[in-house]
Amino acid sequence: MSRWREKSWWGWGWADEALDDAACRKLAEQALRPWMPIDGSVLPIPFDPLLGPPRLVPPSMMEEAFASDSMARAAHAYGKAFRDVVRALHGELEHAPDLVCYPRTAHDVVAVLDWAEAVGAAVVPYGGGTSVVGGVEYRGDGPWISLDLGRLNRIAEIDEVNQAVRVQAGVFGPALEDALRPHGLTLRHFPQSFEFSTVGGWLATRAGGHYATGPTRIDDFVEALRVITPLGSVESPRVPSSGAGPAATGLFLGSEGALGVIVEAWLRVTRRPERKVSASLGFPVYLEAVAAVRDLVQAGLRPSNCRLLDPAEAMLNAGARDGGARLLLGFEGPSAALLPVALEICRAHGGTEREHDPAGDTFRAAFLRAPYTRDALIRLGLVVETVETACTWSRFEQLHAAVVAAVQAAAPTRVAVVTCRFTHVYPDGPAPYFTVITPARRGAEVEIWDEIKTAVSDAIAASGGTITHHHAVGRDHRPWYDGERSPLFAGALRAAKRSLDPRGILNPGVLV
Amino acid sequence: MSRWREKSWWGWGWADEALDDAACRKLAEQALRPWMPIDGSVLPIPFDPLLGPPRLVPPSMMEEAFASDSMARAAHAYGKAFRDVVRALHGELEHAPDLVCYPRTAHDVVAVLDWAEAVGAAVVPYGGGTSVVGGVEYRGDGPWISLDLGRLNRIAEIDEVNQAVRVQAGVFGPALEDALRPHGLTLRHFPQSFEFSTVGGWLATRAGGHYATGPTRIDDFVEALRVITPLGSVESPRVPSSGAGPAATGLFLGSEGALGVIVEAWLRVTRRPERKVSASLGFPVYLEAVAAVRDLVQAGLRPSNCRLLDPAEAMLNAGARDGGARLLLGFEGPSAALLPVALEICRAHGGTEREHDPAGDTFRAAFLRAPYTRDALIRLGLVVETVETACTWSRFEQLHAAVVAAVQAAAPTRVAVVTCRFTHVYPDGPAPYFTVITPARRGAEVEIWDEIKTAVSDAIAASGGTITHHHAVGRDHRPWYDGERSPLFAGALRAAKRSLDPRGILNPGVLV
Repeated sequence: MSRWREKSWWGWGWADEALDDAACRKLAEQALRPWMPIDGSVLPIPFDPLLGPPRLVPPSMMEEAFASDSMARAAHAYGKAFRDVVRALHGELEHAPDLVCYPRTAHDVVAVLDWAEAVGAAVVPYGGGTSVVGGVEYRGDGPWISLDLGRLNRIAEIDEVNQAVRVQAGVFGPALEDALRPHGLTLRHFPQSFEFSTVGGWLATRAGGHYATGPTRIDDFVEALRVITPLGSVESPRVPSSGAGPAATGLFLGSEGALGVIVEAWLRVTRRPERKVSASLGFPVYLEAVAAVRDLVQAGLRPSNCRLLDPAEAMLNAGARDGGARLLLGFEGPSAALLPVALEICRAHGGTEREHDPAGDTFRAAFLRAPYTRDALIRLGLVVETVETACTWSRFEQLHAAVVAAVQAAAPTRVAVVTCRFTHVYPDGPAPYFTVITPARRGAEVEIWDEIKTAVSDAIAASGGTITHHHAVGRDHRPWYDGERSPLFAGALRAAKRSLDPRGILNPGVLV
Repeated sequence: MSRWREKSWWGWGWADEALDDAACRKLAEQALRPWMPIDGSVLPIPFDPLLGPPRLVPPSMMEEAFASDSMARAAHAYGKAFRDVVRALHGELEHAPDLVCYPRTAHDVVAVLDWAEAVGAAVVPYGGGTSVVGGVEYRGDGPWISLDLGRLNRIAEIDEVNQAVRVQAGVFGPALEDALRPHGLTLRHFPQSFEFSTVGGWLATRAGGHYATGPTRIDDFVEALRVITPLGSVESPRVPSSGAGPAATGLFLGSEGALGVIVEAWLRVTRRPERKVSASLGFPVYLEAVAAVRDLVQAGLRPSNCRLLDPAEAMLNAGARDGGARLLLGFEGPSAALLPVALEICRAHGGTEREHDPAGDTFRAAFLRAPYTRDALIRLGLVVETVETACTWSRFEQLHAAVVAAVQAAAPTRVAVVTCRFTHVYPDGPAPYFTVITPARRGAEVEIWDEIKTAVSDAIAASGGTITHHHAVGRDHRPWYDGERSPLFAGALRAAKRSLDPRGILNPGVLV
């Protein structure tokens, strides 16, 4: 596959966007040294990997759909979690897939599942590979195939009358928006991974877009799905809404490749909003800002942007220097007329509008660069993790404190930064998103990450939060997911899995 | 159970609201005779039923939870579909339940499921019994128990901070709203059956409320569920949103009592809207009105009411005499400010606002009385059925024509009224709701109904509509539901059912 621009095999995004050594050192000197103990060395970007021979030989009939070269296998060994980047940087690629398969049609998917069943190989569906929860790596010992759906990338139909698009699973965010733009339409679904993630990945992991309220999770846009299982194809009817039995889409949304391979979807799209308005507000008291956001969403307002940054986040990512919280508010389309109502609610909670505030732009720039910055911090020897959840309003204050305390207790040097923002808000509670940065001992990065991750996840579970609002479960969140769902529901999923994938070849270790 | 007001055992709602013989005759003379051939006779309201002895004896341990008298058994023999009322009027009660069980606690539910498994009885969960699709009657030959959840009627917790309520399954609509009102809150879920249906019934059938857009299906309000299966209890976590695996609630919403007995739920409630605005518009051309509604919802407007009545419905149910369509529009809360935007869109499609139009009030009055009127029409010898679906916008014109044609072809006298309104509208399509009235031969009502129902359901399926938007599947919609879902998805549900209800005692014949 020739690309005009190479994707990084070991880290986030485009290879040429990774910070070079000099940029890493500059980041260390200017942004970190004052408050974070670092040794100043920079882990080098690894050479191209060379892996041992695969344990599988592609079937001759569809040989051209497979790749077995080291680079393809290394690039499909992991997702993009902290531990993935660390392991790739250290050349730990023993468990890379034996083969990468790039189906071009749904029929190819059927054929490769048949073949995998016959040879006893596991199959891990792979969209853009941006999982941060161990969703696309196989942790068993047997041979396995990474099923990269990136060539199943046709935008089959744009239906302007019904505002919907029929799209194959391997279409990436930008390609979809590029196709919709000339029609004045948009899916309006922008996860942080947008540039590097696919429709199929969004669906399989129930991705969250960056809009704070209203339709934002990919679930909200699904009209119909087509899924290939080892026993055949499942299609749900294309209707705006149905009350006929439990929703078929509901079984596959969030199934993370364990129940079938999502190959196509009808998604609802919308007209591009003509009007957008935004505001930035400062709040001296963080919990008053939390109350303002609650009040706002409980009053029936549905801002497109409602990002509440806690004081630490406001300082680090939005350049705020007053020690207060920042609320970035936005409204779109007909709702733009409702911004004044929102501002009035905020003022009642001590919020003040900040004219020409650069916080929004600063935050947006930091947000878009965040994964590249994360990779640089890793190379500088820091543990960097983002943790997200959702909880009811009344549990938030305690949950916030518990997460901060858990990180401080688990961080080896007791020097840790924990910041929090709301990514989404609901009438019954927020989705808080924490960023954790702390120094690691070189060579012990993954263990330290594991300890912090465990401590934070325990704190979230004990505080009544879900283990994930939109990062999915994968393998890394599995213990807490198992604690959060009823055993009988797990049993029902297991039974459904057995009925669709009797030999258990699909993404083993995930979901059931 | 003593009640200050008796519910009808054979027909809809309160016994004393049923039209008496004189009122039926008046309806015939004034409203029907001019355009519908009827013989003028009125089928009498039946005497209290006397059934044969039940085949089950309640376990002595929980005897007081059971009723086996004829009246209780007759009242639980059927739902409130056309065929149910006809059969009850004719005293066809051979398949009434052997026992009615009224659990008072979740523990009682566990106990009765255990006992039913032991004695080999089927258990059909029963909320308010307003099913119009054969959802609450058992059509097998063995003994069965109607599990009436009406005494599981505690409103356990009203959480103002998070705007949610914890409520048991047997709570009826009015009791819930009465409890919420002093807190300034409302569930804002008003199915037409509101007065006589329960929270558990809404959840098990994925009921639709009467609001046209936005949160309106009961699914939209569910925070968490508690379900009792024959193997034990399933609880989903109480969080505002989660991306952890396929949603557990999704398996039980719409499971119609076949996967478990929903005993309790956390539901999201909302502040009572301070502001409501409405308008009534006339459209000379029906399809232009359809286009206006599409345009309105695709522009991002979310009216609370958006009931488009086709010319026949406008004439019959809203007193319109100009042969045009009527659009009843409403906005609530902050969105009330957006009514002018909606009116402008309507005007562009030839709609004109009708000041002081009584159509809205007339429609509302007819809407609330509709089920009682339906029972009177049945007693006058008419077949009356309501059929609802959802389809994409581009399929609606053809679907509407196909339904009308199917009724005309199947109606024995070729004299049939078919009217249509939109109950809900989505950016990708409407939920059309048809009312069908046609004369029947006395004694052949159910066969004629069956023929018409089959013809209309076939027409809907062939036109790309779902077999039900909000009436559920039950037993009457089963063949079309089976046609609409993928066999592999049906297999997954069957597997889930076996894992939760291995002996298959729960509502057999429904879902799988």
